[in-house]
Amino acid sequence: MPEKVRIALDAMGGDHGPAVVVSGAALALQRHPESEFLFFGNGGLVRPLVEAQQALKAASQIVHTEVAVRMDDKPSQALRYGRWKSSMWLAIEAVKNRKADVVVSGGNTGALMAMAKFELKMLPGIERPAIAALWPTLRGESIVLDLGASIGADAEHLVNLAVMGAATARILFGIKRPTVGLLNVGVEEVKGLEPVREAGRILREETFPDLDYQGFVEGDDIGRGKVDVVVTEGFAGNIALKTAEGTARQMAEYFRDAMTRSLSARIGYLFARSAMRQLRERIDPRRSNGGVFLGLNGIVIKSHGGTDAEGFAAAIELGHGVVRDELLGKITAALGRHHEYQRQALGGAAS
Amino acid sequence: MPEKVRIALDAMGGDHGPAVVVSGAALALQRHPESEFLFFGNGGLVRPLVEAQQALKAASQIVHTEVAVRMDDKPSQALRYGRWKSSMWLAIEAVKNRKADVVVSGGNTGALMAMAKFELKMLPGIERPAIAALWPTLRGESIVLDLGASIGADAEHLVNLAVMGAATARILFGIKRPTVGLLNVGVEEVKGLEPVREAGRILREETFPDLDYQGFVEGDDIGRGKVDVVVTEGFAGNIALKTAEGTARQMAEYFRDAMTRSLSARIGYLFARSAMRQLRERIDPRRSNGGVFLGLNGIVIKSHGGTDAEGFAAAIELGHGVVRDELLGKITAALGRHHEYQRQALGGAAS
Repeated sequence: MPEKVRIALDAMGGDHGPAVVVSGAALALQRHPESEFLFFGNGGLVRPLVEAQQALKAASQIVHTEVAVRMDDKPSQALRYGRWKSSMWLAIEAVKNRKADVVVSGGNTGALMAMAKFELKMLPGIERPAIAALWPTLRGESIVLDLGASIGADAEHLVNLAVMGAATARILFGIKRPTVGLLNVGVEEVKGLEPVREAGRILREETFPDLDYQGFVEGDDIGRGKVDVVVTEGFAGNIALKTAEGTARQMAEYFRDAMTRSLSARIGYLFARSAMRQLRERIDPRRSNGGVFLGLNGIVIKSHGGTDAEGFAAAIELGHGVVRDELLGKITAALGRHHEYQRQALGGAAS
Repeated sequence: MPEKVRIALDAMGGDHGPAVVVSGAALALQRHPESEFLFFGNGGLVRPLVEAQQALKAASQIVHTEVAVRMDDKPSQALRYGRWKSSMWLAIEAVKNRKADVVVSGGNTGALMAMAKFELKMLPGIERPAIAALWPTLRGESIVLDLGASIGADAEHLVNLAVMGAATARILFGIKRPTVGLLNVGVEEVKGLEPVREAGRILREETFPDLDYQGFVEGDDIGRGKVDVVVTEGFAGNIALKTAEGTARQMAEYFRDAMTRSLSARIGYLFARSAMRQLRERIDPRRSNGGVFLGLNGIVIKSHGGTDAEGFAAAIELGHGVVRDELLGKITAALGRHHEYQRQALGGAAS
């Protein structure tokens, strides 16, 4: 385990660019003084921001580049003009060349995924990366994946997601054998998509010493915290995530409405304001900002593009945590064990 | 338009059976005195409940049957023992034979769908039914479909969903040309499932005088009320719905927690309690209980199985509303116009 955690930052990523990235890094540094930062981006913009803060300046290096990936370009476009020289590419490259332990970017998700795949390559046995995130639940937090890295999934991919998700839960939650559920529909006529059923069969019947498969879960089981790891393919996962974000925002809005509607409600709010502050913090989407790209031979954290310094700091801290706990090594080992079991099972069946 | 609205009720459906169905009918009758009820179920259980309430008794007939569909049987099982004689089957049959204008059941969704398809048949040009429901939003309400009637959808099915959903919105919301969006993922690399893209192309390029296509929407646009009608296939739709329900429950729980945590929060709650009551009503899932099965030659309303009398009354009232506004006739006409346009377009292309 490295003494320092070295964090590569795509300073130009996100809707607000260097302003948010640099302030986020400063916040993260206060909480984790053993951090070191490598900023990639336009030096003329980044340097003054970094140098304005003594502690941050001492912990940072800045690598200048003029090229930045635009937020809404297609991955193929971004690769064309951004390969070798964009802030995003160079930040990922720092992980590849072992100059950094993790890269954090709030930039274009598709481009980040494409560049990360290109530079870092996939782990053995994994064909497609996945985005995993921490989902706040009534019991604490769960890991949900894939949140949109790829669309559609066969049974094998879903099983790999289960293994990678469980390894992540083991590290982030300190649980030896995390519970895992496959996201499915609750309508009785349809038992769900065929790959989901087949993945369920594999998870039920084969040996998975590192996870505890609990069967299908439905959308409302996620927030309930029914399992530590919720596995789904990227289309449904992305829609579930966005729908939950929208519903949380809607509920917060209703609540604000109710609390300002009458004089007595406003008085009530004054009495309850410390509770209200706790509530707001609890439902603050910035707290759980940051998706981990899994399946790559390197650690990439995607921050929401629209977040502020506090949210970006949360993404950096997530990266910090997974580096400190050696996520990548543990995922690689878990996948290795899984594929070894499969090999033995096939060997056994053949002999 | 019939003077009376005749409502067939599967008295044995739902987790609580006749107790909730009969009390729900009594509540709905108070609000809509022109209702008439046909109860199908075990007379020994249903009759005493109905006859205990004078007004309800005068507006009701009871048809006895001993057979009831179990909540978790597969549709094929339910059809085997429940065809011709179960309370669910007989209630649907009343609509088929024009003895009732609408059927409401809180029973097994898959069985209800299978029996309704079997008895009522599909509308011309529609191959598969869909479940549509009202979704509370920050702007009011939207219609979301399909919420799980069938898994997967080709572009043509999605376009039919758009036409049927828009016809429903026109009636329930009184909007001449409802806005329609296709649910898709927001991750840049993936532009979504091929059928969704193709349906988008058709909705953009062809003539739809009865709807205003607005393009793709994401999960968080549903609660925002960005469009009047959100179209998706049943797997993603069901997961979005359940996830939203789970998130709403989770937020309400956080809120309760915050309001009871300290003495001053409890005092605040007292001052704000009328606002709190309004808030609770606003987020009460019973208020929007009831999915409409679309695409069938008859109106079928599915209530949540676990709801109470208030929730079941909401499902009956939804049925009442769509009958009064002649939903079925208007959907059939809208589909007819759509298919006529398609026919002309094809004719034009061929000539």
